[in-house]
Amino acid sequence: MTVEQLAKRLGAELACGSGVRGLGSGVRGQIKAVGPVETAGGDEVTFVTRGSGVRGRGSGVWGLGRAALLRSRAGAVIVGERIEGLAMPQLIVRNVDAALIEALGIFAPRLKRQEEGIDPSAKVGQDVKIAQGVSIEAGAVISDKAEIGQGSVIGSGCKIGENSSIGANCRLDGNVVVYHNCRIGNNVIIQANSTIGSTGFGYCCIEGEHKLIPHNGGVVIEDFVEIGANCCVDRAKFGNTVIGAGTKIDNLVQIAHNVIIGRCCLIAGQVGIAGSCKIGDGVVLGGQAGVTDNIKIGDGAMIGGQSGVFQDVPPKGRLFGTPATGIAEASKIISLTKRLPKLAETVKQLRKRIEKLESAFAKASADRQKTE
Amino acid sequence: MTVEQLAKRLGAELACGSGVRGLGSGVRGQIKAVGPVETAGGDEVTFVTRGSGVRGRGSGVWGLGRAALLRSRAGAVIVGERIEGLAMPQLIVRNVDAALIEALGIFAPRLKRQEEGIDPSAKVGQDVKIAQGVSIEAGAVISDKAEIGQGSVIGSGCKIGENSSIGANCRLDGNVVVYHNCRIGNNVIIQANSTIGSTGFGYCCIEGEHKLIPHNGGVVIEDFVEIGANCCVDRAKFGNTVIGAGTKIDNLVQIAHNVIIGRCCLIAGQVGIAGSCKIGDGVVLGGQAGVTDNIKIGDGAMIGGQSGVFQDVPPKGRLFGTPATGIAEASKIISLTKRLPKLAETVKQLRKRIEKLESAFAKASADRQKTE
Amino acid sequence: MTVEQLAKRLGAELACGSGVRGLGSGVRGQIKAVGPVETAGGDEVTFVTRGSGVRGRGSGVWGLGRAALLRSRAGAVIVGERIEGLAMPQLIVRNVDAALIEALGIFAPRLKRQEEGIDPSAKVGQDVKIAQGVSIEAGAVISDKAEIGQGSVIGSGCKIGENSSIGANCRLDGNVVVYHNCRIGNNVIIQANSTIGSTGFGYCCIEGEHKLIPHNGGVVIEDFVEIGANCCVDRAKFGNTVIGAGTKIDNLVQIAHNVIIGRCCLIAGQVGIAGSCKIGDGVVLGGQAGVTDNIKIGDGAMIGGQSGVFQDVPPKGRLFGTPATGIAEASKIISLTKRLPKLAETVKQLRKRIEKLESAFAKASADRQKTE
Repeated sequence: MTVEQLAKRLGAELACGSGVRGLGSGVRGQIKAVGPVETAGGDEVTFVTRGSGVRGRGSGVWGLGRAALLRSRAGAVIVGERIEGLAMPQLIVRNVDAALIEALGIFAPRLKRQEEGIDPSAKVGQDVKIAQGVSIEAGAVISDKAEIGQGSVIGSGCKIGENSSIGANCRLDGNVVVYHNCRIGNNVIIQANSTIGSTGFGYCCIEGEHKLIPHNGGVVIEDFVEIGANCCVDRAKFGNTVIGAGTKIDNLVQIAHNVIIGRCCLIAGQVGIAGSCKIGDGVVLGGQAGVTDNIKIGDGAMIGGQSGVFQDVPPKGRLFGTPATGIAEASKIISLTKRLPKLAETVKQLRKRIEKLESAFAKASADRQKTE
Repeated sequence: MTVEQLAKRLGAELACGSGVRGLGSGVRGQIKAVGPVETAGGDEVTFVTRGSGVRGRGSGVWGLGRAALLRSRAGAVIVGERIEGLAMPQLIVRNVDAALIEALGIFAPRLKRQEEGIDPSAKVGQDVKIAQGVSIEAGAVISDKAEIGQGSVIGSGCKIGENSSIGANCRLDGNVVVYHNCRIGNNVIIQANSTIGSTGFGYCCIEGEHKLIPHNGGVVIEDFVEIGANCCVDRAKFGNTVIGAGTKIDNLVQIAHNVIIGRCCLIAGQVGIAGSCKIGDGVVLGGQAGVTDNIKIGDGAMIGGQSGVFQDVPPKGRLFGTPATGIAEASKIISLTKRLPKLAETVKQLRKRIEKLESAFAKASADRQKTE
Repeated sequence: MTVEQLAKRLGAELACGSGVRGLGSGVRGQIKAVGPVETAGGDEVTFVTRGSGVRGRGSGVWGLGRAALLRSRAGAVIVGERIEGLAMPQLIVRNVDAALIEALGIFAPRLKRQEEGIDPSAKVGQDVKIAQGVSIEAGAVISDKAEIGQGSVIGSGCKIGENSSIGANCRLDGNVVVYHNCRIGNNVIIQANSTIGSTGFGYCCIEGEHKLIPHNGGVVIEDFVEIGANCCVDRAKFGNTVIGAGTKIDNLVQIAHNVIIGRCCLIAGQVGIAGSCKIGDGVVLGGQAGVTDNIKIGDGAMIGGQSGVFQDVPPKGRLFGTPATGIAEASKIISLTKRLPKLAETVKQLRKRIEKLESAFAKASADRQKTE
């Protein structure tokens, strides 16, 4: 695909480069991939965005420095507004992120189209409802009364428990286990080796022994949720553990029983959310953060990486640390903690000065009394 | 089942409600499920307990407030002693936790009875001993010389390694991997995607390269241990990694090589225990806590969530923080740390007052000398 | 095998014990296993080393104390230099670690030799290249255009994605999932339930919704890398996520998209490395440590357990804490933090003394003025 053709596909205004740099640098140069500014070659299109990912400092033109872009050997660049002095052609778009996602889709590796149908080595139970266009891969096990919605792909080695339902256009990758009585919406992605609907960690101590509390509840995963690899979502004791529509979860995340997560949250890798927490809409949890049980986190709150949340968090709260406190307070405390050696030294000096003053004053008083 | 019938099943004394609230609120009302005070409907029985789970603040009547119970629309309530002024029937029992577990069992979802026998797609090696009443599900692999005890269920996709034994009445859920030479006792539950007997992280640096130390040891998991989903228990270099009887382990927990865990411990989600630690009986480790290698933790100790244990812990020790210290000291330090800005300001003010005193004193001395 | 024969196998100089302690204690005593100093019996050889593992304080003779060795009932001991006064025979070697690894290999449990060939229940796609001596176990799925190198073992339930390659002499244990377009070198071990090549956690917010950034890149795992159980290595957005030759990774570790890890690193359990980090050669990350995105860690740096790295780390940096700082500074701060109650008390006392001085001085001034 040429730069010109790509611009058309992205609905971009095409600005020619200010110089001729030979093969691949013009609007007729061939583009074969998307690449970052630093490494993109002449057959790659690069981009200037304000960053991506949860805490992505990304590749913003000012962050990286204009110099990096000027040095870039990319065949073209996707930008939000024209940048002066660039030799390469520019594809000017209204929304760089959206154009970037589209371009990445255009140049995505071509994989074999998923075959529809049920692999002969898969095992399908009784009273199972399987919609059209479904693919059930090798060795998958679909238990009795389960339902699989239109166009969904159940990866090899997956287990779908009794009476659980998977919506339309879902993708469960290899070896995902979904226990019984779970409801998974439409357009949900669950990556390899994740576990949905395991029994939660709830015990009563009866006569000195821990007795498991039966978990009669289930799990509800709403539309457009995406869950990474090797995650765990426990089923509820009563009612359901719920993950709200559009929420995205990274790898190795633990969601305990009866947790209710709102819509469009971002939950980074290795986060742990203990039992019965209520997480609002649009909440962001940084990597390895932990939330103790029965906590409420308000809409739009952001919790820094490795933080430990032991108290309710108001909407739009920005927290950091263990125990987590407001980010401004946390920063001040961190900086003062670093200055503790200096503070301790200052106090030591002050004590000496006070001692000196005390003895000087005592001496002066004594002198004066003598004088009198 | 009516409230009356349920009371009989639980061996509860039945106290009629103080008011008539229509359908389902009397002793002949139908009960179909157990539900929490806040959401239970007329066909659900609720309960008043001191809480459940590791750090569960739970649903104690005083915690929740009497008001919540008075507002509850539940059809009946299980209580430890009669509560005055309640409209709903009360089921008075000696042990609410035990009655709750029994009631949850009565109302548990009805799942298909596990079929005995070996699924045709499972692969069973040579010299394997399989007791009566065992179920080996689709695609499971049982290696040579393994043993499976009476009534145990080996879930689909599980691998049981050479010469490993699983006791009676165990349940290994989907895709659990047990390596060779592991001994698992009776009544053990291991949830999906967990790994038992992987080689531990032990290397020697020889001529600049990390060489793996062969792990000749195994894993011993004693009776009534329950292990969550996506956990790892490494095999020992020598001897065995041991998990003592009745210990319960949450999801995504890491137990390293040669760790010895005592009886009846509770180990919450994402905890990591490094090599050769010795954990006593009845120890509680909060979520995401970490214990560095070769540490001893005494019986009955409790370690707070996210704590990092770098020193031995005495029996019944209560620790928190990184590095973990006694909970009282840790609380004091946390509260003083929060007051660091104030302390720094105080020190600044004191310095000014000292300077003022010093110059005033110097001036007074000078004046006096002049006078003299 | 006798002690004499073992000495020969290890190329060790044999020093007879100073005493006769009966069965198994002489050079003709039978040795059947390797055991630690504290528990080794008469038919076991023990060893004295400076420790093993990442933070292993190990079993060094001075660490343990000479007394433990003198008390040991082992049949023989592997040492780096002769220890006086020992009753048991000593096998003196140049490199204890290397000899220990060799001895452990000699006494490793005898497992059934891996059968070559493809299990009938495995599924192999089109245009797959499988070299000689490969074993593909039950239920494994090898997708189109994948390659498996000579002598490699693909465990039961593994999935190898389209166009991915596994080198020679690799071992992938049960239920490992490798997605498409991943390149795994030679002599690589990946333990059970790990996931390689999952899509990373990268989203753009477009019109209020999180849109997944397509991950067109792959994963490159170089020779002699070893990865524990239940780990995740995400594929790159562009280019590759790379794990350098000889690097060893423990269980439950998260490696995010576009991370570049150097050679011969040691990454302990439950570590999380966020997107686009560059980790140098020989870096050691302690258990549960976290590294935020886009961080550079220099060659030979060591990061303590549970630390949170929020800034670049210079080569050979030694860091600890959250946010991580130099280990010396961190230790000082930790110790001063512990003394905060005392510091606060000191400041309180100083204020009192200042107040006393101030009023005394004021009184003295007033007196003097009166006098004058």
